[in-house]
Amino acid sequence: MNHPAAAPLSVTTGPIGGSRKVYVSPPAHPSLRVPVREIALNDPLSPALHVYDPSGPYTDDTAQIDLAAGLPPVRDAWIAARGFPVTEGRTTRPEDNGGVGPDRLVAPCPAHHTLRRGEAGQPVTQLEFARAGIITEEMIYAAQRENLGRTQMHEDAHARLADGEAFGAALPAFVTPEFVRSEIALGRAIIPANINHGELEPMVIGRNFLVKVNANIGNSAVSSGVAEEVEKLVWAIRWGADTIMDLSTGRNIHNIRSWIIRNAPVPIGTVPIYQALEKVGGDPARLTWEVFRDTLIEQAEQGVDYFTIHAGVRLHHVPLTAQRVTGIVSRGGSIMARWCLSHHRESFLYENFAEICDIMRRYDVAFSLGDGLRPGSIADANDAAQFGELETLGELTQIAWAHGCQVMIEGPGHVPMHKIKLNMDKQLEHCAEAPFYTLGPLTTDIAPGYDHITSGIGAAMIGWFGTAMLCYVTPKEHLGLPDRDDVKTGVITYKIAAHAADLAKGHPAAQHRDNALSRARFEFRWEDQFNLSLDPDTARAYHDATLPKEAHKVAHFCSMCGPKFCSMKITQDLRREVREMEASTVRAGMDAKSREFAKQGATIYVPAGE
Amino acid sequence: MNHPAAAPLSVTTGPIGGSRKVYVSPPAHPSLRVPVREIALNDPLSPALHVYDPSGPYTDDTAQIDLAAGLPPVRDAWIAARGFPVTEGRTTRPEDNGGVGPDRLVAPCPAHHTLRRGEAGQPVTQLEFARAGIITEEMIYAAQRENLGRTQMHEDAHARLADGEAFGAALPAFVTPEFVRSEIALGRAIIPANINHGELEPMVIGRNFLVKVNANIGNSAVSSGVAEEVEKLVWAIRWGADTIMDLSTGRNIHNIRSWIIRNAPVPIGTVPIYQALEKVGGDPARLTWEVFRDTLIEQAEQGVDYFTIHAGVRLHHVPLTAQRVTGIVSRGGSIMARWCLSHHRESFLYENFAEICDIMRRYDVAFSLGDGLRPGSIADANDAAQFGELETLGELTQIAWAHGCQVMIEGPGHVPMHKIKLNMDKQLEHCAEAPFYTLGPLTTDIAPGYDHITSGIGAAMIGWFGTAMLCYVTPKEHLGLPDRDDVKTGVITYKIAAHAADLAKGHPAAQHRDNALSRARFEFRWEDQFNLSLDPDTARAYHDATLPKEAHKVAHFCSMCGPKFCSMKITQDLRREVREMEASTVRAGMDAKSREFAKQGATIYVPAGE
Repeated sequence: MNHPAAAPLSVTTGPIGGSRKVYVSPPAHPSLRVPVREIALNDPLSPALHVYDPSGPYTDDTAQIDLAAGLPPVRDAWIAARGFPVTEGRTTRPEDNGGVGPDRLVAPCPAHHTLRRGEAGQPVTQLEFARAGIITEEMIYAAQRENLGRTQMHEDAHARLADGEAFGAALPAFVTPEFVRSEIALGRAIIPANINHGELEPMVIGRNFLVKVNANIGNSAVSSGVAEEVEKLVWAIRWGADTIMDLSTGRNIHNIRSWIIRNAPVPIGTVPIYQALEKVGGDPARLTWEVFRDTLIEQAEQGVDYFTIHAGVRLHHVPLTAQRVTGIVSRGGSIMARWCLSHHRESFLYENFAEICDIMRRYDVAFSLGDGLRPGSIADANDAAQFGELETLGELTQIAWAHGCQVMIEGPGHVPMHKIKLNMDKQLEHCAEAPFYTLGPLTTDIAPGYDHITSGIGAAMIGWFGTAMLCYVTPKEHLGLPDRDDVKTGVITYKIAAHAADLAKGHPAAQHRDNALSRARFEFRWEDQFNLSLDPDTARAYHDATLPKEAHKVAHFCSMCGPKFCSMKITQDLRREVREMEASTVRAGMDAKSREFAKQGATIYVPAGE
Repeated sequence: MNHPAAAPLSVTTGPIGGSRKVYVSPPAHPSLRVPVREIALNDPLSPALHVYDPSGPYTDDTAQIDLAAGLPPVRDAWIAARGFPVTEGRTTRPEDNGGVGPDRLVAPCPAHHTLRRGEAGQPVTQLEFARAGIITEEMIYAAQRENLGRTQMHEDAHARLADGEAFGAALPAFVTPEFVRSEIALGRAIIPANINHGELEPMVIGRNFLVKVNANIGNSAVSSGVAEEVEKLVWAIRWGADTIMDLSTGRNIHNIRSWIIRNAPVPIGTVPIYQALEKVGGDPARLTWEVFRDTLIEQAEQGVDYFTIHAGVRLHHVPLTAQRVTGIVSRGGSIMARWCLSHHRESFLYENFAEICDIMRRYDVAFSLGDGLRPGSIADANDAAQFGELETLGELTQIAWAHGCQVMIEGPGHVPMHKIKLNMDKQLEHCAEAPFYTLGPLTTDIAPGYDHITSGIGAAMIGWFGTAMLCYVTPKEHLGLPDRDDVKTGVITYKIAAHAADLAKGHPAAQHRDNALSRARFEFRWEDQFNLSLDPDTARAYHDATLPKEAHKVAHFCSMCGPKFCSMKITQDLRREVREMEASTVRAGMDAKSREFAKQGATIYVPAGE
């Protein structure tokens, strides 16, 4: 007999090499401490660079990490001041943990958690505050994070401000708290922030902000336990994941979630239908509205920040998938399709959508309206089932907004490059600019084992076109449950896609880090180049594989080209030569010469003055 | 003291798992045996799929591989029939091998090689034959390879023919030899095929054909020897590289190249300026036209199929790079810039371009006009230096064409997504549709260690826009010399980019493999899914990491979701259920019902007949 799964004892802590955690306070808000990762540089012109930091206290050398105590509840004072009643909450039941016996039961996280629930008539959600003209602490905090680097960039001689193509997005030169409020009020952005998730460091998701990345974690019946899942959370945010979805489906699901949320500085999303299905023994036909409703409340009370709800899969959509190559590939979508057909009824999620809104509003759980009919192959992309559901999601967006709920919309899937833009255009059209949140899309089906790349291509493109958050895909997609290395590879790949999108959109400060790294590269500041990269450990290891000595860290070459063939070294020599020439009286100025040559089509250089 | 580097004794042979090499003959050309990789499937509807196969005899179980003897010279009879004089050729000199002493000298490949050189007045190049209206064996062979799958695709029920966006490319439903000839005659395609490379299995590069991938190999002064380089060639083409560039710069450069060419079934490209620089001791200022000219002849006689020539870096361009963040990042470009400034003279490559053409024409070495001023950072993308050089490349294209030479044009580099399309547009405009051959482009600078991905994004996009061949980038880019694993990762990433581009352009048969793989996935034919993927070994290993048993190869789930949450299983159950319903008298047809529901907005399913 197995022993109970141990609670996680330790997770990865300490800063990423070459950097440290610092906190900055927004102007006029000294009590807000917004985390930033500071990368120290060996550059007299720019001794440090600040980058966005979703990794939480785990990368703070001064933080005391105690998983059983949970993270410091930075939001608690703000939330307490809003006057939400404290409540007892629902009692945990055996089925919440999949009916696991006492010998295998994981203990819940013992961290203290004051349970609150908003009342009817009082503003609870960030959307309701925004509409009322109130700027919350969450908005100020998120604005500060978005603004990072914009001042520095304005002072960067190599910056080319806002030369991107934003496809209608409105990117401000500076992000103010008022701008965040306004975007939320318009439904164009959300701050997923359950009032029972006090540990959260707030962040904003929307087309006019930096593109965000979500990483999925979660066990399945076949693999993984609590220790691995909490470490996967910490590991994923270490490398830059902005939100985490816990897609667990096995046993101990309730108690594992308590560990995750109490130790999560980022928004946590879930798909409640997974747990509901566990409660009815795994048979979709046995699902009921009552079981689902109870699961929503259970998870909302725990502090989940956003729920994927597949209410767009309606009975009449299901036959539209009959001729597909890969049918329905969303777990939630297939469960609901099965339920609809089994009972010959419209989806209970669709029918009870208003009540779902009422429940989620009281905790400020944001909607992530699930794309249950997303295409699972190139052949099925942009078909009637997919776009039929998207229209329904637009209809549901209006209902959720009418109830005061924040909303984002999930998107595909498998889509060839030439069909990606239409997804964004239709989403903007049908869903009234609610943030889009896409899985990839994968631009071909033929590379299992490399679907982080097939999808990274699509993710970069759809991020550029306007998707607000990209859900990562790991190398194990279609093949198995990702492990720690897969999670890191998936996150880094998606940070690349998100950043490439920010650059192409023309985010004012996006290019700041590229410029800093390229300058370090050109000046052979190897350590700076490593430290400025998304993954300093890998960059350093790859370099050291052939040139491990410390002396090589200042060498003017690497093993790729060797000392004689380093173009950057040759260019530097050339520039020095030019400077020496310029210092002499022989030469008047290369730029003028260049123009002269171009005009004359001269084939021989004639020094000025001859 | 070291012993002489051993000649390579063995390379990777045998077919990729689940497939075998077969040969097909074009209609009416029974003597031409065009290789194809046949993937056996456990699918009653489609028992095998043929895919493009650049891997040469190494993946043929029946082939006898003897590196010292070289590959079978499949083209020799065709070339011999064209009446080119046999010639003695140039004598090898010590400086050809970097002046290496006898104790470290690698012996040249002993394979027999009849040296030929075209005369003035006789057609030598594929371009000259094409203009004369002559369809060569190379054109027939290449057409057969391009046509692969087009017939099958027309019979595929799930095929959606030519729904891509081709941006002006003209993709035929079927590729005929005459179409290949016509594209070459127009300068829109090339078949790199030196008359001294008889071992070559010809292939075509052009915007109206499948997007191709080049892999770079080559030692540097710091690392790698002959055995590794020949194995890297065999390894890179095994995973799908269509051409190989040998960028060696160290010692034994001439003799290593002889091993590579005699054992290469794909076109080999080089950058002759690298060897020329070795011959003058590594100092760009000491380069001369005479040394360079001699190097061209040396390599042309060996059988190199295309040369990168950086003749577009003119003296007046150099000052345009002065304010760049990363200066000049092309090795050849920086060498030539240094030479120009050292001598205050126009580039000797530019001044002697007509003679270069004359030399290359006599062997049919194709031009790959180098982009010596490509941007090395996001900040430098699309600047005056880059586009100034591109205009010069357009001018040189016309000269090369006038001399009967085949031409392709190299492109960047580091370019953010929103600036990629302009590169393609300008290239088409200035270079009169000569094939574009780009390195990436990398869409951000901030991910050293992952530049196969930062560049794979840009490569997929520019391939879609019209680039004919993509030069791979490995994870070691900017950090060190790639090893065997890096080469494979680079090639697979670029096969993804090229294939995603083919899909998006609407190549008639491109989707065939995606459909086959997705059907295998949906039907839980795990082995077929692995074998249809670009890298069956990795796909299988990832799956088996959590579910290693043979029984799991037919299981209707994987460890990602587990048995209860597999959407594909649920969909299949659902479809079975629907079939059972349809078999009963209760139900008239789901499609009709679907329309009815949509119209009524019905919330309850009412079976037909009630």
